[in-house]
Amino acid sequence: MSTVLVSGSSRGLGLELIKQFAALVPENGLVIAGARWRTAELEELIRSNQGRVGFVSLDVSDESSIIASVQEVKSLLGERPLDILINCAGVHSDTDGKVANMDDLMRQFSVNVLGTHHTIRSFLPLMATSTEKKIVTISSIYGSMTNARAVAFAPCPAYKISKAALNALTVQYALSYEDEGFIFFAVNPGWLQTEMGGEDADLTVPQGATAVVNIIRAADKSTNGKFKNIQVNGWEHKYNGSDLAW
Amino acid sequence: MSTVLVSGSSRGLGLELIKQFAALVPENGLVIAGARWRTAELEELIRSNQGRVGFVSLDVSDESSIIASVQEVKSLLGERPLDILINCAGVHSDTDGKVANMDDLMRQFSVNVLGTHHTIRSFLPLMATSTEKKIVTISSIYGSMTNARAVAFAPCPAYKISKAALNALTVQYALSYEDEGFIFFAVNPGWLQTEMGGEDADLTVPQGATAVVNIIRAADKSTNGKFKNIQVNGWEHKYNGSDLAW
Repeated sequence: MSTVLVSGSSRGLGLELIKQFAALVPENGLVIAGARWRTAELEELIRSNQGRVGFVSLDVSDESSIIASVQEVKSLLGERPLDILINCAGVHSDTDGKVANMDDLMRQFSVNVLGTHHTIRSFLPLMATSTEKKIVTISSIYGSMTNARAVAFAPCPAYKISKAALNALTVQYALSYEDEGFIFFAVNPGWLQTEMGGEDADLTVPQGATAVVNIIRAADKSTNGKFKNIQVNGWEHKYNGSDLAW
Repeated sequence: MSTVLVSGSSRGLGLELIKQFAALVPENGLVIAGARWRTAELEELIRSNQGRVGFVSLDVSDESSIIASVQEVKSLLGERPLDILINCAGVHSDTDGKVANMDDLMRQFSVNVLGTHHTIRSFLPLMATSTEKKIVTISSIYGSMTNARAVAFAPCPAYKISKAALNALTVQYALSYEDEGFIFFAVNPGWLQTEMGGEDADLTVPQGATAVVNIIRAADKSTNGKFKNIQVNGWEHKYNGSDLAW
């Protein structure tokens, strides 16, 4: 767990993952924040973790931006491989009324699924000599068809469908690369008090990020191709660390 | 079961569904084949079922074509509502090698998921006064993440991901419209000896179509939001009519 890249890390869960990994990596470790822009919080993190937190400009909706970022990440890493890639970048939008009104499906597919696919395939070569090779997709319980009725109140069908497709993408990668030692899995990070989640959400952002970090650290070959729920003490009725049904 | 529209019905499963429904609908029934073009087989079906089989030009990848077809279907139906809509139109393509090589994801999403979404939302109003209101999406066992390892040999990750997303779309519609009496469900039609399936496939096209027709006829409120396997005598180890796991 020496080198980590997190996409979508200018704010919210991604930013907090950068912060927590920066405190966990060893002396020669490196945590790279990939984002469209540097926010003040990200600047402060980079400043206060001199040399252990790097930044690359990364817009996952633009494959040429991803390809350019690979060269930047490569020069930041030097001889080191990339150990962990966390795909946190994504968009969310709502539909007014019934599903027939949904007009944001291709935009959600384009960023949340295709953007993740392009990111993964571009960074895979930098992970070839790693002994960890963990690739995480930040999914959502909203992507679970089994659980759809329980979250039917949330008016974001395109987001839900895109997260189901993201899970399917994760499974395809998991099966395709297990022979090379990669571990791919999707994570439900919980309902967090981010800009997206709102202030009524279940968990603080640090609580959610800690739970995601714990899953990543514990992940092994048996985690490949799974959809993992976070585990949070006191929230076992909702976040019990189990495998989620698709 | 008086009026039926099948998209993607110029050949294969869609064409056979037209044929079988034409033999099932009552005297005043109407089976409408929606397709990009009339094939010779479809011409023959229309000719031999005088008045009971109609044709509309329908390209599900082009929303303006769908909207134009709604007017055609409306005039074919006259006072009758549309009872059953079967979304059979779809594309399939393969990826050479590993998933990183996949370059057909957005095309698969665009036709198999967005095209189905546009078709459903455009034809919903014609079904409002039907007493059946059955909307079927022709999915695939390849869309099941639970079953992904068993079909990992098939080199079509984009198709698989698109069918998982199509299932998720079906679930969103099912939950959104159950209060209006609609019944939405996804069907695995089996591995059929179509142009797509090849001649080594398990079942003849008539066998698959009969099994799909049986599921549609038997469908009731309890079927809403489900992923149904076909049931074929002698093939119970593979096609047992059960609910499939997502």
